[in-house]
Amino acid sequence: MLDVDRSSEFERLPPEQARALIARGEHTGGTANMANGRVQGNLVILPKAYALDFFTFCHANPKPCPLLGVSQAGDPALPMLGDIDIRTDVPHYYIYRDGRFVEEVTEIGSYWREDLVSFVLGCSYSFEEPLMAAGIGLRHVELGRVVPMYRTNIETRPAGPFGGGLVVSMRPMKPADAIRAVQITTRFPAVHGAPVHLAEPEQIGIRDLMTPDWGDPPEMRDGEIPVFWACGVTPQVAIERARPEICITHKPGHMLITDLDNASLAAI
Amino acid sequence: MLDVDRSSEFERLPPEQARALIARGEHTGGTANMANGRVQGNLVILPKAYALDFFTFCHANPKPCPLLGVSQAGDPALPMLGDIDIRTDVPHYYIYRDGRFVEEVTEIGSYWREDLVSFVLGCSYSFEEPLMAAGIGLRHVELGRVVPMYRTNIETRPAGPFGGGLVVSMRPMKPADAIRAVQITTRFPAVHGAPVHLAEPEQIGIRDLMTPDWGDPPEMRDGEIPVFWACGVTPQVAIERARPEICITHKPGHMLITDLDNASLAAI
Repeated sequence: MLDVDRSSEFERLPPEQARALIARGEHTGGTANMANGRVQGNLVILPKAYALDFFTFCHANPKPCPLLGVSQAGDPALPMLGDIDIRTDVPHYYIYRDGRFVEEVTEIGSYWREDLVSFVLGCSYSFEEPLMAAGIGLRHVELGRVVPMYRTNIETRPAGPFGGGLVVSMRPMKPADAIRAVQITTRFPAVHGAPVHLAEPEQIGIRDLMTPDWGDPPEMRDGEIPVFWACGVTPQVAIERARPEICITHKPGHMLITDLDNASLAAI
Repeated sequence: MLDVDRSSEFERLPPEQARALIARGEHTGGTANMANGRVQGNLVILPKAYALDFFTFCHANPKPCPLLGVSQAGDPALPMLGDIDIRTDVPHYYIYRDGRFVEEVTEIGSYWREDLVSFVLGCSYSFEEPLMAAGIGLRHVELGRVVPMYRTNIETRPAGPFGGGLVVSMRPMKPADAIRAVQITTRFPAVHGAPVHLAEPEQIGIRDLMTPDWGDPPEMRDGEIPVFWACGVTPQVAIERARPEICITHKPGHMLITDLDNASLAAI
C-alpha cells in the first residue's frame, strides 16, 4: 500500500534501489513518483529478426521514438542506462504474440530468449518535470489521471513492417504557457522534444478531444488550447501492425527507471 | 523609381552605402528590401530629461523594446551600430510635439538639440528573415502589405511617464509552423524574441482580427492560427502617453539600417 510517507520515500529513492524493490516484486505499481529527477523509459523487446527494422523505424521517427538505449541480443543488461536486468526491473510487462496482447506479468524470465533485443525509448515524464518546475500546471498530473492520447492522420515514416499513424499525447494550456512549453521541451529532443501540433485538433484527424484513444478524457478550461506531443504509444501501434511472433513492452505508466538524470538530456 | 533591377541592387547594398544613399536624399522610401542580412532598427529620439525613464521602460519591457544602441546626449553618432549620423541616415522621420504627430521629414538637422538622446530598438525584420529562411511563409510579405498590429489588454511595466498597453504584430501560420516560429524567434531576444500569444485573440483584448489598429488587415487562411509578437509600436504608444515636448521617431517601415548582421543577434 502506497501511503503518503511511502510516496515521498519513493520520490527520493536512488534509481538502483527503486529497481531492486521492483525486481524483488515489492513494487508492481506505476513509477510516476519514483526516483524523481531520473529518466524513465518506454520498453520494447523484440526478436533480433525484427531489431534492425525497428531500429530504423526509431531513427526515422525520432519524435515519437527517441531511442535512449539498446541491448545486445540475448543480453538482459543495459549498461548505458544503469545496472539493469531487463527481465525483472520493470514493475509490469505486457506480452504480445503476433501483434496481439496476451498477458500481463511482473517478470519475464520464462519468456527470455537468446535472440531478444531490448530498446528503451524516452518518455514524457522527463519533459513534464521541467514544465512543472517552470510553473506550468499539467492538468492530468493535478487530477491524478492518465494523459489523454489520440491516433492522428500524421503517418510515421515506415521501416520494414513497422509503420502506421503517429499517436500524440495532449496537455491543455493557456497560449502563453504553450509558447513557454515549446521553448522548454525543445531542449529535450531525447524525450519527444517540441510539440508536433497545437490548437485545431481536427487538422491532425482528432474529431473529439473528449474521447481519447488511450488515457483519460481531458478537462479543458476556459482560454486553454490543446498542445500535442508525439507519444511513446506510436511504436506500440507500429508493433501491432508488424505482428512479430513475440514482443514484450512495459505496461503504460510502469516504466523502466534508469540512472540518467533528466537534466542530462537537455540539449541546450 | 524602384524597379526590379534596382530592388535586387538595393538588397545587396552594403549598409554604409545604403545609409549614404538615404543621407543624400536619393532614397526616401521603405527599407524592407535594403542591405539584406543587416539589422534594421526602430528609432526614438528624446530630450535627456526623459532619457533615463525611457531607458528604464525599455529595460522593464524587453520584448516590445529590445534596446540595440543608445547615443550620448547631443551626439548624432551611434558607433556601436555603424558609422551613423542619426540626423540624416533614416529615410523618413516623424516629429511629435507634446506626444502628438506634427510633421514628417526626411532629415532632422533643423530639429537637432544638444540634449537629444537617440535610442535604437530591434525590429521584426531581423526575425522575419530566419523565419522565411526556414520556409515559413509570411503572408504580409507575400502580399506586399504592412503587418497588422493591434492594441492589447496586456499592460507594460511603467517607468516614469512611460507606460500603456502592449502592442502586438500578428502573423497567420499553420500550427506546426507556429511551433517552429516559437523555436526560431526564441533565438532572437534582441528583436522581440518568442511570441507573446497565439490563437484566441480575444484573450489579449483583440475583438476583431480583421480591423488592426495599425497596418493592413490580415488574410487568414484555412487551418491557420494567429501568432502574436510584441511590437515596436509599443514605445510609440508610451511616448504619446508621456507627452515629451519633442520626440522624433522613424516613419514605420523606414528604418535605420545598421552594420550588425541579423545572424549576430542569435542567442543560441
